[in-house]
Amino acid sequence: MDTTSRHVLCEYYGCDVDLLQDRGFIEELLQRAAEAAGATVVGTVFHRYSPQGLSGVVLVAESHFSIHTWPEHRFAAADFFTCGDCRPEDAHPVLRRALHAEDAEVMVLARGMGRRSIQVREHRREPEPLW
Amino acid sequence: MDTTSRHVLCEYYGCDVDLLQDRGFIEELLQRAAEAAGATVVGTVFHRYSPQGLSGVVLVAESHFSIHTWPEHRFAAADFFTCGDCRPEDAHPVLRRALHAEDAEVMVLARGMGRRSIQVREHRREPEPLW
Repeated sequence: MDTTSRHVLCEYYGCDVDLLQDRGFIEELLQRAAEAAGATVVGTVFHRYSPQGLSGVVLVAESHFSIHTWPEHRFAAADFFTCGDCRPEDAHPVLRRALHAEDAEVMVLARGMGRRSIQVREHRREPEPLW
Repeated sequence: MDTTSRHVLCEYYGCDVDLLQDRGFIEELLQRAAEAAGATVVGTVFHRYSPQGLSGVVLVAESHFSIHTWPEHRFAAADFFTCGDCRPEDAHPVLRRALHAEDAEVMVLARGMGRRSIQVREHRREPEPLW
């Protein structure tokens, strides 16, 4: 694996409550996001909390994609961490649209031995819906 | 789940090569790190790359712990992401010592709906070995 990586941290506000607790939907969505980023899925693990909330990770050959949902707050936090030629930023609009997030926050970090320093490359709020 | 979270990003340099490719060791280590942070394990997924390198995630009731290793570079990147009363910072010395990392970098982020902003709380290099 290439050791120079990008790590995109996303937080989604005002999401659709029903979607945030739909395990099948979230699992399929995270795999679709990984594919949109050009990553290759090698494993998954998901867990549904009682009474609500989901956590899941899609392990990819280039690192991982994760999501944690809080339906009671219409909130979700996601991470897209990849090395090599992937485009982790491309996973973000897939999730934001699919979750019907009213607004979002995105932080892009550069990581990995290739640079020997974790660096914040970008940090933005997206207050407007995408549709 | 509490929506106020801490996310600790760690990078480990000069690690023991054999340990970085020992799947059983890395799997047990990541679970031990999660327990040291006070988290409750609810699932795991690991993958071994050819010819070398490992990726793994321990899903916890409070979010997740992940690791990606590059034995050929004696390098590993780890994330400890937890909400609630966990102590994700306590996972770091467990990994650093166990991997025999010569030096490390740590970035601590505050995340989650409770604060409505991802914030860098701490960012440090640890150039000296811990032992």
